Amino acid sequence: MECTGGYPQDGVPPLEGVAGGGTGYGWNDDGLHGSNLFGGSVDPTKVPSRDLLHVWCMPSTANVGPQETPRSLENISLLAARNERESIQIAVRPKVSWGRPGIAGIIQVHCTDLCSASGERLVIGQAVTLRHVVPLLGVPDALVPLDLPVSQITLLPGETTAIWVSVDVPAEQSPGQYGGEFIITAMKEKAEISTQLLAKDEKHQIFRELRNCIDVVESIEHKPTENVGERLKSISTALKRVILYPTFSEISSDNDGPMDMIEDDALTTLSVHLRLSVTVWDFVLPRTPSLPAVFGICETVIEDRFGVKHGSVEWYEALDQHFKWLLQYRISPFFCRWGDSMRVFAYTCPWPADHPKAEEYYSDTRLAAYAVPYAPVISGSDAAKDALRKEVDILKTKAHWKKAYFYLWDEPLNLNNYNSVRNMSSEIRTYAPDARVLTSYYCGPSDAPLAPTPFEAFVKVPSFLRPHTQIYCTSEWVLGNREDLAKDIIAELQPDIGEEWWTYVCMGPYDPQPNWHLGMRGTQHRAVMWRVWKEGGTGFLYWGANCYEKAMIPSAEIRFRRGLPPGDGVLFYPGEVYSSLKEPVASVRLERILSSLQDIEYLKLYASIYGRDEGLVLLEKTGVYLGPERYTLEHMPIDVMRGEIFHTCRSRT
Amino acid sequence: MECTGGYPQDGVPPLEGVAGGGTGYGWNDDGLHGSNLFGGSVDPTKVPSRDLLHVWCMPSTANVGPQETPRSLENISLLAARNERESIQIAVRPKVSWGRPGIAGIIQVHCTDLCSASGERLVIGQAVTLRHVVPLLGVPDALVPLDLPVSQITLLPGETTAIWVSVDVPAEQSPGQYGGEFIITAMKEKAEISTQLLAKDEKHQIFRELRNCIDVVESIEHKPTENVGERLKSISTALKRVILYPTFSEISSDNDGPMDMIEDDALTTLSVHLRLSVTVWDFVLPRTPSLPAVFGICETVIEDRFGVKHGSVEWYEALDQHFKWLLQYRISPFFCRWGDSMRVFAYTCPWPADHPKAEEYYSDTRLAAYAVPYAPVISGSDAAKDALRKEVDILKTKAHWKKAYFYLWDEPLNLNNYNSVRNMSSEIRTYAPDARVLTSYYCGPSDAPLAPTPFEAFVKVPSFLRPHTQIYCTSEWVLGNREDLAKDIIAELQPDIGEEWWTYVCMGPYDPQPNWHLGMRGTQHRAVMWRVWKEGGTGFLYWGANCYEKAMIPSAEIRFRRGLPPGDGVLFYPGEVYSSLKEPVASVRLERILSSLQDIEYLKLYASIYGRDEGLVLLEKTGVYLGPERYTLEHMPIDVMRGEIFHTCRSRT
Repeated sequence: MECTGGYPQDGVPPLEGVAGGGTGYGWNDDGLHGSNLFGGSVDPTKVPSRDLLHVWCMPSTANVGPQETPRSLENISLLAARNERESIQIAVRPKVSWGRPGIAGIIQVHCTDLCSASGERLVIGQAVTLRHVVPLLGVPDALVPLDLPVSQITLLPGETTAIWVSVDVPAEQSPGQYGGEFIITAMKEKAEISTQLLAKDEKHQIFRELRNCIDVVESIEHKPTENVGERLKSISTALKRVILYPTFSEISSDNDGPMDMIEDDALTTLSVHLRLSVTVWDFVLPRTPSLPAVFGICETVIEDRFGVKHGSVEWYEALDQHFKWLLQYRISPFFCRWGDSMRVFAYTCPWPADHPKAEEYYSDTRLAAYAVPYAPVISGSDAAKDALRKEVDILKTKAHWKKAYFYLWDEPLNLNNYNSVRNMSSEIRTYAPDARVLTSYYCGPSDAPLAPTPFEAFVKVPSFLRPHTQIYCTSEWVLGNREDLAKDIIAELQPDIGEEWWTYVCMGPYDPQPNWHLGMRGTQHRAVMWRVWKEGGTGFLYWGANCYEKAMIPSAEIRFRRGLPPGDGVLFYPGEVYSSLKEPVASVRLERILSSLQDIEYLKLYASIYGRDEGLVLLEKTGVYLGPERYTLEHMPIDVMRGEIFHTCRSRT
Repeated sequence: MECTGGYPQDGVPPLEGVAGGGTGYGWNDDGLHGSNLFGGSVDPTKVPSRDLLHVWCMPSTANVGPQETPRSLENISLLAARNERESIQIAVRPKVSWGRPGIAGIIQVHCTDLCSASGERLVIGQAVTLRHVVPLLGVPDALVPLDLPVSQITLLPGETTAIWVSVDVPAEQSPGQYGGEFIITAMKEKAEISTQLLAKDEKHQIFRELRNCIDVVESIEHKPTENVGERLKSISTALKRVILYPTFSEISSDNDGPMDMIEDDALTTLSVHLRLSVTVWDFVLPRTPSLPAVFGICETVIEDRFGVKHGSVEWYEALDQHFKWLLQYRISPFFCRWGDSMRVFAYTCPWPADHPKAEEYYSDTRLAAYAVPYAPVISGSDAAKDALRKEVDILKTKAHWKKAYFYLWDEPLNLNNYNSVRNMSSEIRTYAPDARVLTSYYCGPSDAPLAPTPFEAFVKVPSFLRPHTQIYCTSEWVLGNREDLAKDIIAELQPDIGEEWWTYVCMGPYDPQPNWHLGMRGTQHRAVMWRVWKEGGTGFLYWGANCYEKAMIPSAEIRFRRGLPPGDGVLFYPGEVYSSLKEPVASVRLERILSSLQDIEYLKLYASIYGRDEGLVLLEKTGVYLGPERYTLEHMPIDVMRGEIFHTCRSRT
């Protein structure tokens, strides 16, 4: 056959051109030319994992979604006080696919304990935890716990996956340097998983062979004289054949029993190693948060989703679990249920004051404030009044009574609403003159203006409600970007008779101001508490942490409520949606709330030594927070501020 | 213990309020209250899958991403001509989670053959295929083949997954109604997968038991007199114990061999059933596309990514595979490599004209046009000239020579570029005066203006290039939204001497005009060819279908080239990135290109009966396409137009 027709040599189209792919080809050559990878399929047990994976770190304020682009890998250094949680993210993205169809591959993440030179430890699984960052509405938010110390994660082609690493330093931990490492390894999928369906035929074959052997054995038992040697031979041959099936191959080859983790030196030399070092300093964050942050947990949502009947044993268990879980976040929970006209029934402890659990709840030093149930909510019946009186009579004798407050109405709007608050407060204060009533509001009564303009009327609310409210809790939304207006609010209060200014966020304020909606920047989430500290509030209220849309099954899809910005009223998720876990799954927003409540302790420490004004200077000069629309968009200033507090306050705490 | 403290009855906080969750609770109650689901964990073998899943249909022009919200389920009706592919999407979203940690659950999708009343079939796996829609840069784009007729898909919490269903009607299929169904079932995870790691211990136990039996058998062989009965008994007991291990439980219980599919009636009654009916009409789409659509395949990309050496056996195989694969899309492929100054080396067949493969390629009736390699690309050496002459001498005698064209330069910009085209064309036309040269351009020579304004100069290019170009291939970008300017271009051409107007898209035109970039609407992708048909072009060129960024491993992550809009130059992906598949994976954009090339056949049929003007009226009155910035955003008008053509043209084809 003559085959040299149109081409000058060898019948092959000529090579031509500088690159050959048109625009921009090869601008970002990643250098993956290793002969181990070239051309064929990829065996992760033979090539360094760094050739298969991008691994890099991101701060806790970054929203690391599937499109996050790789950065260079640098070791991690964290600063943490004692009784503080500090978090960071590890991002991983496949460079190639090596796994079964539909995925890029599976990686194993192994984290060691963090050890100090003197042998002290931050133990993986206790002080160090890993969670998988999972998107909600496309935004990375839910933190699903990973197995420890070793877990496996599935990577998808072209998608970045993030792992949330938290270090919880115990209050009694010795200050010093702690170091450990993450070992990230691209895995060859376990034979069991990838070949199991294929191995099904083999299983049937083994089964048939064994049944056949049983028949032969039984035949020998029945006719013990005929050809016994031959029949024994056939059994022995069959059994030897069976144990050579691929199913047993790894057993016969390594013979060292079940082993799921890679501990093989040869393999860990292929892994990506990432050093994590933590500087633990002498400061111990106070066990009782300096700023009471009271957050609602909707008990109706729990009753519906988990199918627990109000007042049943399971109901108490479910509430107890939610209380204890949220308490970890320097938050003082209250359970809540809304009534007509935003009347709210709020209580921190589901048990009555004379129950041992009540004492356990109210005296917990991590609880900064607690809501006392206002029992006569259904009517002003004598029984209800008696019950309230009895509850108050017990509590007002306790040392923890100073943490108590009554939350009776959410955002009164008119004279009728405001008068309800006054009447309920009067009753309460008959039983305990020093009781504190909290009222959340953003305006005065619309049908009896307290002043010519809405803002002036809003500022006049304390003079109208006094002495029926002690905690004046106003929406940050009212201030807009005028933080100076906070002074007008504070000026109206009488701290000498125990009046306080607290704030809250909910639907408002909107972007770019600080709030906790899904899709906002990480620093915007964290800025909510910077704002509180700068404006001078002494407490904070959030309406709901679990207010998803109604569902009647624990694992039902999480949906946000119509009319609310995504994430508003939702700071954690039911674990059942993501796993067989029975406990809630935190959002990254809840973690950032914890971080910002910890920031307040840092700022308070600094202010206790250098004065509050110097604290404000520090907040400004580091660029962390200058105002409701002027705060850092990047993480670095936060570390600078914390570092400055560490350097100037250590050995003085 | 006295426990009735603060509460009026039973010591339980009172129930209060109309709803109890604040804003909007329960607005979208999905009615999942079934006692099978209430409270506990979910067993998909006991509850109807519709309680666990949303299933609904979406048209092929919808970009169905993870956030797509559920719609109601309706059965599918499609219209398809013979030799046509029609596609639709099935979207699935979990209502609850029932699977292992990290996922919502696994579903099984089973599709039956589509049958007519007279027993004719569109066979699953051949005429009916299913692919999984996978996102790229967060946009649903890659279509990864699913197993047929039954496949399993993993669903993630809170994410919608789409399945792309295509029906390819063979040219010889009998017209009529065909019906079949999709059976979608929430699966309990296979014991093999979920319990395999646990079963590892068991495997070791079985292995030990068998080895022990072998020892006993051998001991009998050695000492055939001592306690044989006892020893045989022990073997028989051990083997009977082994076959009762859970590993073999399903074999011993059902005993009917390997079975992966759910065929159990009890289970399919739980499934979601979705009817698919297809009306096949008598029209047969012409095997040779009416509009030549020539698309580049970059051979450098293939060489680099698949590690095939230019000219090697593997290289020819790889090019052959790409050619055949793309030919399925009513596209006429050409291989290409760029040189200096956008000189381009383009050829449809990698073998020389005297090779049997060349005849196979060029005479394929699905190929509407082919690029003949212009060999003297490196220099004007005599050898190269001879080779070119030999190639042309062979081809010009063939019937398929009318499909031949020479593509020499991509977008000449100055006199030097244009003169190169003229010189090469002169040489070619010495050997074959009827050779057709294609030149792609968007401007005249910048250093020798042909007219006072850039657009006028652009329009004058034919008078400047004549007779060195026959196919004047201009960028749609030049027209902007002024489709009337097409008349000015056409007016300059001389169809009597074989001059044609073709167009192309690449970086431009931009949104909202039709193009194939990732992230554009589905109808925007499909509108590219509607535009061609309306403006009157007789052919189309696209620069590259596989022009991803350089990589040296088949399964390397797909990256788009810097400086290009995402998706520009990339219409399919290497199968290795998504699976062990060795063939390319189509994008949804490529499927929409096919659909729009099929639309052209429908319009051409209609115009052949009612005239081109009536065809334009139909395009307008259905709202499908009115201009470069006025085309339908919804799918419905497309079906209306196709239906109208079906009703008015059937039995007239």
